Amino acid sequence: MSKWEENVRKVTPYTPGEQPNRPGMIKLNTNENPYPPAPGVLKAMTAPDGDALRRYPDPAASVLVNALAERYQVDPSQVFVGVGSDDVLAMAFMTFFNSEKPILFPDITYSFYPVWAEEFRIPFEKVALKDDFTICKEDYYRENGGIVFPNPNAPTALAMGLEDVEEIIRHNPDVVVIVDEAYVDFGAESALKLVEKYENLLVVQTFSKSRSLAGMRIGFAIGNPVLIKYLNDVKYSFNSYTMDQTALSCGVAAVKDEAYFQETTDKIKKTRENAKVELAKLGFSFPDSKANFLFITHPEYQAKDLFQALREEGIYVRYFAQPRIDNYLRVSIGTDGQMEALYAFLRQYMGKA
Amino acid sequence: MSKWEENVRKVTPYTPGEQPNRPGMIKLNTNENPYPPAPGVLKAMTAPDGDALRRYPDPAASVLVNALAERYQVDPSQVFVGVGSDDVLAMAFMTFFNSEKPILFPDITYSFYPVWAEEFRIPFEKVALKDDFTICKEDYYRENGGIVFPNPNAPTALAMGLEDVEEIIRHNPDVVVIVDEAYVDFGAESALKLVEKYENLLVVQTFSKSRSLAGMRIGFAIGNPVLIKYLNDVKYSFNSYTMDQTALSCGVAAVKDEAYFQETTDKIKKTRENAKVELAKLGFSFPDSKANFLFITHPEYQAKDLFQALREEGIYVRYFAQPRIDNYLRVSIGTDGQMEALYAFLRQYMGKA
Repeated sequence: MSKWEENVRKVTPYTPGEQPNRPGMIKLNTNENPYPPAPGVLKAMTAPDGDALRRYPDPAASVLVNALAERYQVDPSQVFVGVGSDDVLAMAFMTFFNSEKPILFPDITYSFYPVWAEEFRIPFEKVALKDDFTICKEDYYRENGGIVFPNPNAPTALAMGLEDVEEIIRHNPDVVVIVDEAYVDFGAESALKLVEKYENLLVVQTFSKSRSLAGMRIGFAIGNPVLIKYLNDVKYSFNSYTMDQTALSCGVAAVKDEAYFQETTDKIKKTRENAKVELAKLGFSFPDSKANFLFITHPEYQAKDLFQALREEGIYVRYFAQPRIDNYLRVSIGTDGQMEALYAFLRQYMGKA
Repeated sequence: MSKWEENVRKVTPYTPGEQPNRPGMIKLNTNENPYPPAPGVLKAMTAPDGDALRRYPDPAASVLVNALAERYQVDPSQVFVGVGSDDVLAMAFMTFFNSEKPILFPDITYSFYPVWAEEFRIPFEKVALKDDFTICKEDYYRENGGIVFPNPNAPTALAMGLEDVEEIIRHNPDVVVIVDEAYVDFGAESALKLVEKYENLLVVQTFSKSRSLAGMRIGFAIGNPVLIKYLNDVKYSFNSYTMDQTALSCGVAAVKDEAYFQETTDKIKKTRENAKVELAKLGFSFPDSKANFLFITHPEYQAKDLFQALREEGIYVRYFAQPRIDNYLRVSIGTDGQMEALYAFLRQYMGKA
């Protein structure tokens, strides 16, 4: 090892789900939306002309911030935007989690949390979920350097009621509590209604799931203006302009089309409820999902074998080789047609065809 | 102050140049390219369709990495891309500058360097430029935690010869040396030809200036594969997908059009050389620019007064209220027409019309 390597920040990076590109594949492995974004988004892509492209974007991303503020009925000073909710969460970890006490998050959760903690040298403790994969709120009533959890949780898909979320926030006035709501639009209750009441609450959401814009990298956070100001200071100390001209225009178009948003999220919820019935018929069990994916297990078939068999068939789902969940598969909700193909393959594989 | 605020990372953010949007304004304040991006870029914007937008982009940004590798005749494993060169530099500071010894950079330079150092808690020392604003290479032959400087430097616009750049790298084998070449395509010699020879050299460039794509946020770094691997690990520990689908397709289109790149950079260099003549006629002096801007001062007129007078006329330039340079203006090179308007106003203001 060369001497210059001694001062390198060495980290074990997060491994994103694979992004295969096989013709005819059925991709249910990264919780993308099976439907394209709102029609206005494709039109908005061409809004930035040569003159807009050669110039720096608005560093405050005001068009998008204002559209979100209007949609969620908050003041623009309460909105922060970033390059996907990963960027927003990374900035939030860097900004708010600077205590010497450990931050707390569930043992089974978004696997990027420990990666950010390592990157920013934040001490952390994983808090075990109960055996039924629910979060035990009382476990978070103790000294800590901050709290973060997804609601619904991933990959379990389970949602916590807003009263329980509030209890966790109420017991932790001295630290920042981040509620990561990447999947909230598929049926959970958002903590957004609590941001006026708790100045230490940051709610993070994304355009990657319910707004079909994973490809444009747009996430946002809503909180009280003081919190958002701190977050912006750190962001402006990292990169003045994170949102490019097309991301801004596409993002605004997506927020404005409320009808399409309702229609597509409703369709996905309907397909998910049907998937619960179909997969149960095949002998699968799963926590009751409020997200755009199901976390399934089977008493007779090993998840890893199923994962491999599906993969060979061109059906991609997600498998985590981790303690407690290594006999589960996370299956994103696709179109009805894609889900039918999944059931058909499973029936055949299990000899139930 | 609430108790949760105690653990907030408090920073003094970088202040980007203002982005006014006044009809008919002449914007020479943020070193943007006055010409639109290559014609293929606007076509490429619509390449991502609904299906591409709903899906995550390639986390490795391979299409863009490969296009850059081909253009600069290096291996794809030697290329890193980010959301503008600010993102690339932020990631590089976080990755490589982890020594307890101070990093070194010029006292007059890109004012984001001390901001990143503060954000990531990196000790630093500013090394004074000589009175003529040149970098004294010998000042960098001492123990340090890393080195970063732009070439050409900003806002002075002065370029260092490649032999001198190499001397600095050669004297510092134990730390990473970052050469920030945001403006290199306007006439300086790139250190890219040294990356095979020095494994501790990282060369950073951007699409924001010479490729007219400030609005799409694309920057890149080239170095040896080991260095790039460390940088990617830190990036993948921050955000899996930083480059959105349109940034990727626009970036590739820009790299592929070499003829347009030559044509527009040549035009800007020609306008700059003419500007040197015209501004000298008006009594201005300036370091000999190899960038797309001039750093001008006048013996009879205060820079701050000129800045204000120009602003009222709708001509935006950049003024830095900083020691040693507070009687200078940084003027980006615009079109010939924009520059004529600048000269005309100055002539009138100085009673030389």
